[in-house]
Amino acid sequence: MSSILEPGITFINKELKGKNIDRIDRRLKNLKDIFFDKTALEKMDPETVVYEVESYFPVEHDIEGGLFYGITYIHPGTVGNEYFMTKGHFHKIRNRGEFYCTLQGEGMLILMDENRNTWAEKMYPGSIHYIKGNTAHRTANTGNTILSFSAFWPSDAGHDYATISEQGFSKILVQRQGKPELISR
Amino acid sequence: MSSILEPGITFINKELKGKNIDRIDRRLKNLKDIFFDKTALEKMDPETVVYEVESYFPVEHDIEGGLFYGITYIHPGTVGNEYFMTKGHFHKIRNRGEFYCTLQGEGMLILMDENRNTWAEKMYPGSIHYIKGNTAHRTANTGNTILSFSAFWPSDAGHDYATISEQGFSKILVQRQGKPELISR
Repeated sequence: MSSILEPGITFINKELKGKNIDRIDRRLKNLKDIFFDKTALEKMDPETVVYEVESYFPVEHDIEGGLFYGITYIHPGTVGNEYFMTKGHFHKIRNRGEFYCTLQGEGMLILMDENRNTWAEKMYPGSIHYIKGNTAHRTANTGNTILSFSAFWPSDAGHDYATISEQGFSKILVQRQGKPELISR
Repeated sequence: MSSILEPGITFINKELKGKNIDRIDRRLKNLKDIFFDKTALEKMDPETVVYEVESYFPVEHDIEGGLFYGITYIHPGTVGNEYFMTKGHFHKIRNRGEFYCTLQGEGMLILMDENRNTWAEKMYPGSIHYIKGNTAHRTANTGNTILSFSAFWPSDAGHDYATISEQGFSKILVQRQGKPELISR
């Protein structure tokens, strides 16, 4: 038997292939909490896909020392003047970090520390972002095409979506005169 | 003051840019232990660069929960019939995993568990490899161009180079009739 194997997964021609790839999508109906302008939201089709995530979990969840990998694809669009974005979360184990590597499109990585200080980093193809521990993170698509990025995070990090769902970030990213601006709520 | 910042680092046009990027190279003189054919090795220029590594350490070493990022560039070449390769290591904290993503070139990821079972995975642009915990790993360039890949690993993983330096892997990757083959030593 040959001891030379094929790789676990491949990402070629913008397509993630391999065994055990987990695929989810998030639609407007799943994201009612996160957008500020509820009136604009109610006028839109709740089935509109805002983002999709493909993930590769080579070890069990909650195992210490392992890593997970995923690609997020955020569709272009706005709800009112707020860009399509991800739910955002802290890690359940707060000190766990994460790397994002932008593949295509343009956007913003919105970050908030535990004192609710919020800032953002520009995302564009080739930009690499380290998300420190104890920092909530969310991404928004500020362009006219899909924004996609790969992510690498510890297998025991977990997700705390509830804090953001209840309290939001202290700033929101809106389009003003065609440009993204981070403003206090 | 704008709260919209530039990304920490960028990897654009095959160039890693940003503050605090650590750069090292490993030459034949640094790698005397790892190649099998010492006679062939002695005939070569000890200053020959075998590989280079660019790393980004956004948190302190040995901090739990953080991640590190690096790109390794292995030059094409052989020592006798053994391909140019990295030192190889276990993680000091044995259960820490790692991801490799091949950027360019072709090669092999050589893996060995703690029972000294050795196998390999083919590396080519777009191949993604998860290195489980408790698994020694080394990469070899089997092509005629630079082999480069990005790596993501936990900031507290550490490196145990000594075990490999002393005991090697149980198999070596050699060129036979122009093709890579993994053979017992």
